Amino acid sequence: MGDLGRVPVGIIGASGYGGVQLVRLLVDHPRLELAYLGGESSAGQAFSDLYPHLGHQVQQAIEPIDLNRIADRCQVVFLSLPNGLAFKMAPTLLEKGCKVLDLSADYRFFDLATYTAWYGGDRTDKDIAETAVYGLPELYRDRIARSQLVGCPGCYPTASLLALSPLLKQGLIVPETAIIDAKSGTSGGGRQAKTNLLLAEADNSLSAYNVARHRHTPEIEQICSDLAGHEVLVQFTPHLIPMVRGILATVYATLRDPGLVREDLLTIYTAFYRSCPWVKILPSGVYPQTKWAYGTNLCYLGVEVDPRTDRVIVMSAIDNLMKGQAGQAIQCLNLMMGWDETLGLPQLAFYP
Amino acid sequence: MGDLGRVPVGIIGASGYGGVQLVRLLVDHPRLELAYLGGESSAGQAFSDLYPHLGHQVQQAIEPIDLNRIADRCQVVFLSLPNGLAFKMAPTLLEKGCKVLDLSADYRFFDLATYTAWYGGDRTDKDIAETAVYGLPELYRDRIARSQLVGCPGCYPTASLLALSPLLKQGLIVPETAIIDAKSGTSGGGRQAKTNLLLAEADNSLSAYNVARHRHTPEIEQICSDLAGHEVLVQFTPHLIPMVRGILATVYATLRDPGLVREDLLTIYTAFYRSCPWVKILPSGVYPQTKWAYGTNLCYLGVEVDPRTDRVIVMSAIDNLMKGQAGQAIQCLNLMMGWDETLGLPQLAFYP
Amino acid sequence: MGDLGRVPVGIIGASGYGGVQLVRLLVDHPRLELAYLGGESSAGQAFSDLYPHLGHQVQQAIEPIDLNRIADRCQVVFLSLPNGLAFKMAPTLLEKGCKVLDLSADYRFFDLATYTAWYGGDRTDKDIAETAVYGLPELYRDRIARSQLVGCPGCYPTASLLALSPLLKQGLIVPETAIIDAKSGTSGGGRQAKTNLLLAEADNSLSAYNVARHRHTPEIEQICSDLAGHEVLVQFTPHLIPMVRGILATVYATLRDPGLVREDLLTIYTAFYRSCPWVKILPSGVYPQTKWAYGTNLCYLGVEVDPRTDRVIVMSAIDNLMKGQAGQAIQCLNLMMGWDETLGLPQLAFYP
Amino acid sequence: MGDLGRVPVGIIGASGYGGVQLVRLLVDHPRLELAYLGGESSAGQAFSDLYPHLGHQVQQAIEPIDLNRIADRCQVVFLSLPNGLAFKMAPTLLEKGCKVLDLSADYRFFDLATYTAWYGGDRTDKDIAETAVYGLPELYRDRIARSQLVGCPGCYPTASLLALSPLLKQGLIVPETAIIDAKSGTSGGGRQAKTNLLLAEADNSLSAYNVARHRHTPEIEQICSDLAGHEVLVQFTPHLIPMVRGILATVYATLRDPGLVREDLLTIYTAFYRSCPWVKILPSGVYPQTKWAYGTNLCYLGVEVDPRTDRVIVMSAIDNLMKGQAGQAIQCLNLMMGWDETLGLPQLAFYP
Repeated sequence: MGDLGRVPVGIIGASGYGGVQLVRLLVDHPRLELAYLGGESSAGQAFSDLYPHLGHQVQQAIEPIDLNRIADRCQVVFLSLPNGLAFKMAPTLLEKGCKVLDLSADYRFFDLATYTAWYGGDRTDKDIAETAVYGLPELYRDRIARSQLVGCPGCYPTASLLALSPLLKQGLIVPETAIIDAKSGTSGGGRQAKTNLLLAEADNSLSAYNVARHRHTPEIEQICSDLAGHEVLVQFTPHLIPMVRGILATVYATLRDPGLVREDLLTIYTAFYRSCPWVKILPSGVYPQTKWAYGTNLCYLGVEVDPRTDRVIVMSAIDNLMKGQAGQAIQCLNLMMGWDETLGLPQLAFYP
Repeated sequence: MGDLGRVPVGIIGASGYGGVQLVRLLVDHPRLELAYLGGESSAGQAFSDLYPHLGHQVQQAIEPIDLNRIADRCQVVFLSLPNGLAFKMAPTLLEKGCKVLDLSADYRFFDLATYTAWYGGDRTDKDIAETAVYGLPELYRDRIARSQLVGCPGCYPTASLLALSPLLKQGLIVPETAIIDAKSGTSGGGRQAKTNLLLAEADNSLSAYNVARHRHTPEIEQICSDLAGHEVLVQFTPHLIPMVRGILATVYATLRDPGLVREDLLTIYTAFYRSCPWVKILPSGVYPQTKWAYGTNLCYLGVEVDPRTDRVIVMSAIDNLMKGQAGQAIQCLNLMMGWDETLGLPQLAFYP
Repeated sequence: MGDLGRVPVGIIGASGYGGVQLVRLLVDHPRLELAYLGGESSAGQAFSDLYPHLGHQVQQAIEPIDLNRIADRCQVVFLSLPNGLAFKMAPTLLEKGCKVLDLSADYRFFDLATYTAWYGGDRTDKDIAETAVYGLPELYRDRIARSQLVGCPGCYPTASLLALSPLLKQGLIVPETAIIDAKSGTSGGGRQAKTNLLLAEADNSLSAYNVARHRHTPEIEQICSDLAGHEVLVQFTPHLIPMVRGILATVYATLRDPGLVREDLLTIYTAFYRSCPWVKILPSGVYPQTKWAYGTNLCYLGVEVDPRTDRVIVMSAIDNLMKGQAGQAIQCLNLMMGWDETLGLPQLAFYP
Repeated sequence: MGDLGRVPVGIIGASGYGGVQLVRLLVDHPRLELAYLGGESSAGQAFSDLYPHLGHQVQQAIEPIDLNRIADRCQVVFLSLPNGLAFKMAPTLLEKGCKVLDLSADYRFFDLATYTAWYGGDRTDKDIAETAVYGLPELYRDRIARSQLVGCPGCYPTASLLALSPLLKQGLIVPETAIIDAKSGTSGGGRQAKTNLLLAEADNSLSAYNVARHRHTPEIEQICSDLAGHEVLVQFTPHLIPMVRGILATVYATLRDPGLVREDLLTIYTAFYRSCPWVKILPSGVYPQTKWAYGTNLCYLGVEVDPRTDRVIVMSAIDNLMKGQAGQAIQCLNLMMGWDETLGLPQLAFYP
């Protein structure tokens, strides 16, 4: 936009973790400006009442959700709401000319029947939903660039699909052998106060949950099927880890060609992600730590082959609130605006 | 001491985490008494210099390792040393009439060739090693009861094998589909100061390590093969979790009979472990938290079936230093002495 | 009770952390048995629905609160409820002959005016309240032994008062210089789902709260005044620490006699607590870790003198849910029943 | 800087936490470039062998420490070494025209006798040491701007002094009543593998250490004395907290004028730090969380007055590796170069 100013952006659902990431990222973005913060229960509060440490940089108040006023003020709107609300707002915003990026599950599915089977709800926005693009730029960069409505991927699907895509796209594995054992920090559960996410309950402990029935399963399968060219079922098991941020997906699959070795796969992964600035293939024998991705939009991939079992094991680490949520949404918006997809996004973690 | 007296017990390698668990467990055990604490680098120190909080209950000093003196004083000796040391001590202790329980890998293998392939070393104690029994009471209770030398299982194998045994023993799964995705607290790495185990490095992060080459793999495979009746290879991946104690093994395998449902498997598991006081099968739909086993000798098992993929998923939670190490050693000793296998062992965690 | 059985005990408010500690402690206590579990919102549920890991030891259901039925079944009742409820139940239970131990603030104050000034509420049980004894056995052992109604101390006051009592009782410090900088794990906030106690919020962070106005202040001051023989005000600052259990109180005060050295104070502390089995004075130069008290009823005290500033610094570590709550309640009950005060209480932590 | 080039910077002691922060900060700094990474034990390794996640941004190798070569290549050198090494290198580097910023204690003291009393060593660089400036910009901005040699403050002194300075400078408190109860994440202990800093030991626990004898005490006292205009002794107690980064200093002092209220002090603090972009005074009743400062160069201050005791309580939160170490060093360098002191430093944390 050069001299003429920054693109005004609105966030609906500002008080949760998705909202506060977006706000934080906007502060550093050179081409965007925060024009509207909307919420229901928190309307009327200063944003810094919720997050006092941001007070010196963010002075806005949270306003009630009025779609007309938002559309008047904003060129772009992020919807950061519980599942089942975005599809009631997006049509109006799109009609008024806004670009819309939804962080919920509402616009992630090619087929709304899959959505309603796993999420319920009565979808009356079928035509709009068909225009939505799945916001994983490493797979759908061009379509995202041309879209007005992006359904941003879930955190687990992002980590899982970046691990699996080269294998499926190149036909290197037997698809139905794919098992994703995923581990997430508790911020993935959002800012709602749930007993099982209390520090007293979740710290120094570990467990699986929603085994064989987590709602990210059909989302992963949809994209895997798209890549494989036929329907694919995967095993997906999420675990709750005693840490704040980060996802590690450990992905197992049987190689079609048992002669492939680790270095072959590293070459394939490096080529596949050659033009993807946010995916980093680690050197041979190095496996990712989730902390390496902390606060960045990066995905680190480590690849291993077990010649004893003919399996490939891929480890994928992201920050669940960045590449797994708000960071990826900004990456999508960069593409939608014709900007470099790295613009304004943090590229390097602090360590330790 | 009661009328009959207590059995005098020695611990060689007292300063590490295995040692301190054994000491702690002996304090509460009604039939055992601590007669000797031995160590190399820590010899001459009071045990309470290392662990001041035990000072009001444990006044012993750590003594140099003198096998003759130990054998004079002790009926039972626990060896809690790095791999490759126990096999130089056990023969002497056995010859002098001690019962020996080794917490290292030295006496875990039916075939010493497997040991040397994965651990190296020049084993000259082949005859002795052949008398050793693998100390997993749920599988080898009778043999343990008759043995003088027990090779206590590793922490990962304990969690993994308790999850897999009913499936393999009953022929319910395709063995080569077994994948063990295991997660451990950092105390599994012992009390040695390693950079990657520092809180600053390991906290709020998560990673896999030794993928496709961890030394617990052949140990797991040995017992799986014994159960299946033929050689079985498994996929085993350990992960380091930002917590102190606890292991969760998430085990995947393809069912031979896709008609089996969750309740069938719960029935099978319940029957299989009917006479095993330390294994608890959780109710349908409940998955174990590692914290539930904290400070106890329990193993909690949760079982799930995914009818979409015909896989069974078993989750197994233990305290890596208890059922995964010192507690299990005491359980074995209880059996060797003809006592109830629950004697003197903690049966219930504090929560949260 | 000798041969004839165990004393039947009821717990009202069974679902919270105080309740689950009491249940857990009763399992191991040789003279008590759990006769009643009562709750409001959780009535009708099996206790093991809330805490599945206890299912193999605790089969009771949570029942509605019916004081008459409780009194019929129980000789002793623990009230583990939010502040302001116990005083509506205790009179009835006492009248029917039950011994009552209240874990809330309702019966901690000598003067109800202090209670209502800090907690509000309309107290109509003045006569009953005057019969209550403050349940800190190290100070009020004899009175507790003779009482029917015990107001069990708060967690912070327990840690703070055990640190301060020898100093105040012996007149060693200038009372108004006493500053208590206290640090607690988040389980002190209870099992209610509050945003600030989420792992995502509280982990890897640290802050003070309720500075200069925490409601444990008047409770500490009341006992300090009792010890000093005149009214004492103290500075008390609580902090929330990213850990589950444990309190460390770091207590500062100016010595009246600047000639006192560390060893003098250790001698005084050792003498003061000579007949107190639950208080352990650490050796010279050793400071307590909260983890040492984990899961036990112990209080560890470390004492330091700074000859540069003429201050004594006392560090006091307890498990906030044990000596700071449920364990201490059992200790009090042991005294009320004429038993040894250590009966059935855990005496040694697992480490690490 | 485009045509004019960036200032070449060297880091000696690159492998530790101070080193990796500096490297990370240099990546984002618009006027600096990394010209040299030096280390002893790590010489010859690629920096990304130590920190693989930086591999896509930092390709340098660690070189042996050769002061002449460093001075040839660098205009500025950061010394990030254990205490007692910098003073053997700084004179040579200064002589060759480099600006030197030392992160150790070597150049923090106005009087070398204080240094040798607390740190030992045989200082032969008295003339050089006298030219050093204490690198706390909020107090010594102008002197830092003119200096060639900066002794960067310790992490605890930074947090403590920013809390205390307005009180001492304005004569608001009785100096000898100052008590600093400080709490630090374990990264403050550096990247050396020490048993007590293992996650297994330090997690879920809490303790004080070096009570009444921590070496940051004289450093704090030196600046307090400078501010007060006479010698001041303070009480300083550090605690180890189970978290990676962050320091909270809770500072107590008795007000000279008991009529002052919280709002008065907030006004005074706001005025005192008016031109200090890195110090943020929190609104009335808000106390800082260490996490708010995570990964930034900020110090958050919360101020409270207890009218019952006439004490002021100031809470000061920083990231110990940023404002407490590397970030502050860059802030100092910005001043030494005549740049804005915020240049290239992160201003806002991610949350949670």
